[in-house]
Amino acid sequence: MAREDQLLDQLLHSRGVIVEKLKARRQQIILLASLIDRIPNLAGLARTCEVFRAAALAVADKSILNDKQFQLISVTAEKWVPVLEVPVGSMKAFLEKKKQEGFAILGLEQTANSVALDQYNFPTKTVLVLGREKEGIPVEIIHMLDTCIEIPQLGVVRSLNVHVSGAIALWEYTRQHRQPWQPVTQV
Amino acid sequence: MAREDQLLDQLLHSRGVIVEKLKARRQQIILLASLIDRIPNLAGLARTCEVFRAAALAVADKSILNDKQFQLISVTAEKWVPVLEVPVGSMKAFLEKKKQEGFAILGLEQTANSVALDQYNFPTKTVLVLGREKEGIPVEIIHMLDTCIEIPQLGVVRSLNVHVSGAIALWEYTRQHRQPWQPVTQV
Repeated sequence: MAREDQLLDQLLHSRGVIVEKLKARRQQIILLASLIDRIPNLAGLARTCEVFRAAALAVADKSILNDKQFQLISVTAEKWVPVLEVPVGSMKAFLEKKKQEGFAILGLEQTANSVALDQYNFPTKTVLVLGREKEGIPVEIIHMLDTCIEIPQLGVVRSLNVHVSGAIALWEYTRQHRQPWQPVTQV
Repeated sequence: MAREDQLLDQLLHSRGVIVEKLKARRQQIILLASLIDRIPNLAGLARTCEVFRAAALAVADKSILNDKQFQLISVTAEKWVPVLEVPVGSMKAFLEKKKQEGFAILGLEQTANSVALDQYNFPTKTVLVLGREKEGIPVEIIHMLDTCIEIPQLGVVRSLNVHVSGAIALWEYTRQHRQPWQPVTQV
């Protein structure tokens, strides 16, 4: 029995080590998507967050994880990427807290003062706020941001889908922070 | 009457100059999306191609431009980005022709020999082949490619949506080729 206990201990320890390694390989960027309404966009973002190992995806209402359409698009990504619940009314408090924890608070939005995505160096600890599908980020949240960044858009039709914008920003963060010599398949 | 003719001439000339300027501002990357089946992906790509002013989007069947779902998602992008028709059976001939015109033929696909997106310098004249939603790029097309590039995927769920992958690759091309001091709003 003592032998079995020992084996179980070892097993739990190994499991703990693997979980810690998985956690350690997460990047330190949180996508705050509470303003986004459309389920395909949220599910797509969950998948994209998982692919780039974002620290977390924050949504207004976690019950969307049980939505069939969400599950179809996210292809189980929500089982791997930590999903936080941050209702729209709690966004300010959440951002204040993250600011105190040393995170840079960024918004992805076209404003007069926005910095072009490729002209910006992402801090390691970053919260990226995404805007509503049509109206973007409300002004009271804009005021809380350290920086607004924008994707330079060259065309006549001037709007990328919010999932695509978020994915491009997350790629740019990843490109700046990843170590290319590190095999990406290893845990 | 002669005066009116003169004015009309001037008007047509100015219009011609503007159209030429618009054309000149297109980047020299063509997205070959003939293998993609899902209309939301194709419509999203049209919008993304327009935002980054790709030279053209090639699809298997141009009649999708009349599809209501396509139009809803593309938000008139298809009126601005040149859309070419390249049926799946004509892809090889199209790629051969573009190769002769000096285009690099790239594929976006995870293979043993793929180059990570951020380790690759995009040639100015580029055709980027996107794969089918599930099966990717068929082997006979892979053989025609100059290079396969891939987006480094760090997560457990290892697949980005094809529209998102294409958008990230198009952003990376744009990032490498655009001149940041150039105001993006000017025509």
